[in-house]
Amino acid sequence: MTKKMNIVGIGPGDREYLTIGALETIENSDVLVGSKRSLEPFDYLDAQMVVLEPRDIPKTVKKAVSYLDDGFNVTILSTGDPGFSGMLKTMQKLSPKTKLNVIPGISSIQLASAKLQIPWDDANLITIHGGRAPTEKLLKELDENKKNIVLPNRHISELAEYLIDHGYSPEHEIIICEKLSYPDEQIVHVTLGEARQMEFGYMCIVVI
Amino acid sequence: MTKKMNIVGIGPGDREYLTIGALETIENSDVLVGSKRSLEPFDYLDAQMVVLEPRDIPKTVKKAVSYLDDGFNVTILSTGDPGFSGMLKTMQKLSPKTKLNVIPGISSIQLASAKLQIPWDDANLITIHGGRAPTEKLLKELDENKKNIVLPNRHISELAEYLIDHGYSPEHEIIICEKLSYPDEQIVHVTLGEARQMEFGYMCIVVI
Repeated sequence: MTKKMNIVGIGPGDREYLTIGALETIENSDVLVGSKRSLEPFDYLDAQMVVLEPRDIPKTVKKAVSYLDDGFNVTILSTGDPGFSGMLKTMQKLSPKTKLNVIPGISSIQLASAKLQIPWDDANLITIHGGRAPTEKLLKELDENKKNIVLPNRHISELAEYLIDHGYSPEHEIIICEKLSYPDEQIVHVTLGEARQMEFGYMCIVVI
Repeated sequence: MTKKMNIVGIGPGDREYLTIGALETIENSDVLVGSKRSLEPFDYLDAQMVVLEPRDIPKTVKKAVSYLDDGFNVTILSTGDPGFSGMLKTMQKLSPKTKLNVIPGISSIQLASAKLQIPWDDANLITIHGGRAPTEKLLKELDENKKNIVLPNRHISELAEYLIDHGYSPEHEIIICEKLSYPDEQIVHVTLGEARQMEFGYMCIVVI
């Protein structure tokens, strides 16, 4: 039987959100592939570490597949859940013939929902893919009658500016969850006007 | 400081989908509250077990809160994720003043997505709440242009019949995932016409 490539969701960051099965699969891997941030918690393992740089994804995926073809247990680490704006779609696109074993993880959207106590079955979940600026697609997807939980791809200030430029009031209140599960996690309630002038890192969830 | 009521997502069933933090919180609890199915994996613990019967939820929640008021560490177990058709909404409704500590878990929707390798950021997630029969709300929510991942509340045969009665072709193909993560897990590809005549248990996810 051909080996399957493991794609493992490692959750938002802190080990407490890792599942027992994910940890087992990771600990039984010969090769771990992931961003620096996702590999870091596992640097106590003997596995070969392959760093996935955003600009080098196709090349790194090829390398991972070649390790798999050589008979190694290979695991690609996906922050959050591989099925939600994660590595599942990337692998399907870049290496459609590779057989996959996907292990779900806690998405940062779920952790935001838990921390803010907003049930997400009634919320509107939006991810902005790739490196593009916000577009009309986002405006269409935002639902005025629901809480919108957004996984943005760029600076929040840019998102806030775009919304204000497209008819949202600068007084419109939003919640920004930054670096959830990390020691320097921050949850702030601000207006779009304020958010436009603030600086946040990339690891954010915004509730609009 | 008043103690918080823990609401812990335990995932679809098997221990491998439990997070490390969830397990820790459960193991440090004096009282565990949950359905028989959710308590079972923890019967090795010394904690007081309070069975949550579907018809007795308000009474049991009251009991759980009184344990909390007495100073015990109380944890309500929610299968899947408490924030997705789980105990978060129930507690907000039945005991709005109780302070909560919500720990997310893997929803069966995520496990279905992982097993079927369908990214769920593009999918349409639908839950049918309570014990009601399918209604027009479901028809409105179903999106023809997307994969609809549905967490139904009743027999699949009834859901299939309703869809056929409301214009769906009996040849329309669906996927049924039953008892995901359990030893007798089943994933079947059938038509609505076939599903109408089949018997499945309650722990299902349907992809339409």
